[in-house]
Amino acid sequence: MNYDAALDAALNKLHEEGRYRTFIDIERRKGHFPQAIWRRPDGTEREITVWCGNDYLGMGQHPVVLAAMHEALDATGAGSGGTRNISGTTVYHKALEAELADLHGKEGALIFSSAYVANDATLSTLPKLFPGLIIYSDALNHASMIEGIRRNGGARRVFRHNDVAHLRELMAADDPAAPKLVAFESVYSMDGDFGPLAALCDAAEEFGALTYLDEVHAVGMYGPRGGGVSERDGLAHRIDIINGTLGKAFGVFGGYIAASARMVDAIRSYAPGFIFTTSLPPVVAAGAAASVRHLKGDQALRDRHQMAARILKMRLKGLGLPLIDHGSHIVPVHVGNPVHCKMLSDMLLEQFGIYVQPINYPTVPRGTERLRFTPSPVHDPKQIDHLVKAMDSLWSHCALNRAEASA
Amino acid sequence: MNYDAALDAALNKLHEEGRYRTFIDIERRKGHFPQAIWRRPDGTEREITVWCGNDYLGMGQHPVVLAAMHEALDATGAGSGGTRNISGTTVYHKALEAELADLHGKEGALIFSSAYVANDATLSTLPKLFPGLIIYSDALNHASMIEGIRRNGGARRVFRHNDVAHLRELMAADDPAAPKLVAFESVYSMDGDFGPLAALCDAAEEFGALTYLDEVHAVGMYGPRGGGVSERDGLAHRIDIINGTLGKAFGVFGGYIAASARMVDAIRSYAPGFIFTTSLPPVVAAGAAASVRHLKGDQALRDRHQMAARILKMRLKGLGLPLIDHGSHIVPVHVGNPVHCKMLSDMLLEQFGIYVQPINYPTVPRGTERLRFTPSPVHDPKQIDHLVKAMDSLWSHCALNRAEASA
Repeated sequence: MNYDAALDAALNKLHEEGRYRTFIDIERRKGHFPQAIWRRPDGTEREITVWCGNDYLGMGQHPVVLAAMHEALDATGAGSGGTRNISGTTVYHKALEAELADLHGKEGALIFSSAYVANDATLSTLPKLFPGLIIYSDALNHASMIEGIRRNGGARRVFRHNDVAHLRELMAADDPAAPKLVAFESVYSMDGDFGPLAALCDAAEEFGALTYLDEVHAVGMYGPRGGGVSERDGLAHRIDIINGTLGKAFGVFGGYIAASARMVDAIRSYAPGFIFTTSLPPVVAAGAAASVRHLKGDQALRDRHQMAARILKMRLKGLGLPLIDHGSHIVPVHVGNPVHCKMLSDMLLEQFGIYVQPINYPTVPRGTERLRFTPSPVHDPKQIDHLVKAMDSLWSHCALNRAEASA
Repeated sequence: MNYDAALDAALNKLHEEGRYRTFIDIERRKGHFPQAIWRRPDGTEREITVWCGNDYLGMGQHPVVLAAMHEALDATGAGSGGTRNISGTTVYHKALEAELADLHGKEGALIFSSAYVANDATLSTLPKLFPGLIIYSDALNHASMIEGIRRNGGARRVFRHNDVAHLRELMAADDPAAPKLVAFESVYSMDGDFGPLAALCDAAEEFGALTYLDEVHAVGMYGPRGGGVSERDGLAHRIDIINGTLGKAFGVFGGYIAASARMVDAIRSYAPGFIFTTSLPPVVAAGAAASVRHLKGDQALRDRHQMAARILKMRLKGLGLPLIDHGSHIVPVHVGNPVHCKMLSDMLLEQFGIYVQPINYPTVPRGTERLRFTPSPVHDPKQIDHLVKAMDSLWSHCALNRAEASA
């Protein structure tokens, strides 16, 4: 067996399909977000503007967050030194979980290494708690949900994206007595569209199914206290398990679920991905808790975020660029070809100091390759103007199609 | 379907078997490790000594680590703001990976959210790279390896713990042309015994298998630069993939693999658990890199660690306590009953201010319940003396068996 040849074959496949990923090496500068220093492979540096980050509100540089982190470092040191059960539960973890339970109006919350792990560990553990569980999963659910649902080979049904009628059809075809769970997202990150939460809750209720909602691209940003779309729409009480991240709008790192006390207790007790791993560093928990707490009261920042997104979309639409607009804070511009997409990204970076990563297959379906912009309250009008002019110039230079906005 | 009743049943099962876990809420005090403040559920506090942490060398309070973290926070803020591919690769991540590749004498390294995720993501991705891969797994491998090996339903064989003859038997029974991988650990954390690395490498070589070594409980602590048991024994070049953690001896958080450049490139490109998740915060990467770098040169700290373990073992043996001693830094004392084990732990905490978590099933087999002590260079002679006297007094008080050391 020639292992090296097998690895080369796997890598060549990616090169041939134009989807081999090259990581861009950057350092954001605190107090100057979204500006960053790009270090090229040859060691030379250039100042750039980050237009594809998921620190949606710029909380990663917020003084409240950084003060809490410096303080925790000085008080308790770097890591937690253990799993949650073996010396790794600290006052910082407890405080963060209380903050998150309160955010979603739930009895409890449980933090994980990441929202990826939270999805994977929770969704793969639920069939152990509810033997025979059937999971109904939206076709565009995130990789971490798919991995969790698939992990233990439990029963699963995939319903067409946002298609509640299809979901009903699938549930109606199954044993009415079987335990069921419907898993979906509030904001799908690649198109920026919303899930029909109320209709999904109605369907779940009708068929006696639990509901599982990934709010990763919504927490901090939607709802009067940043509790996500489920808070904004007054639906949090109809969601059995809410999944969120501390690494995007909250600007730090880690993930969580919020749910009833007994659900949290059961996941805590049965999920290997929670039990057998070092708990988050207290410094991370402290920063995240400060961020969650702050955003419960800073509606102005959420408003500025939505305003930045509206302005960018309006201006790109004004130029006739093929924008995908579903009313969220995410601004994808359709390119439709992996090579063009990568080329546009390279030209934006090299010629304009604008960093936006090309989004290619398998993150999005082939033929829907795109540039995905994430405007934020820290992008000022001058930076927006620079981006819009750069896009206009490149679209002309490359003779790309202009179109009416697609939605 | 009554979901609450199902959750209650799952939780009651744990209570009935005496293995429901209650987390102890603590805060270590920087500069005073292993001392910590224990906050009781009623809010009252007590100073305690942590005797079960996995910050084996006390690096979580090391000035070099904390300075690097404060500096990174001031320079670049809290989180990375993205996945590795989408704005989340920073100079801090690159520097840490270079430090780790150098530590193990490998061409490359790849960091993950945790060593759990590194094991899970890597072991579940290898069958995609080597179709038909058969994984041979030591019976006592960590949960994260088991989860990774099981995830995609690939072929697996479990060989009896440390039994190279059994491994050979299993490999000999399989198709000689099939791709193979042997997965094992260098230090098994619950008994503290070592894997027979050289013999395992010989067997793997004979049958043309790749080798995968979990050095989570060894990196930083063994080998002249902290490269683990594989460095100490001059075997790192015979291991294809080395897995390690940044959250134990290195005192921070996160995990990694080190391997050939093309292996790292392939895992980087194909593992969903690496691709679709926010990268480690720069502050964590900076602290971990400082710790790894420091420990490459601090043999004195490793010597003090081994000395502390030897002293504790000698003294407990002197009292005839049923110690499990395989020559590593981990000091398990056999109890053999979950209720006694929990009771001893409670008495140590309440009466003596000594925190050691009871280790019960399923972390260890039933009937082998134990107290697992982790002496470190920051435990001083007075603290060791206090522990030994407390154990002596409890053993007499509870009329527990004394025995010759078991190994």
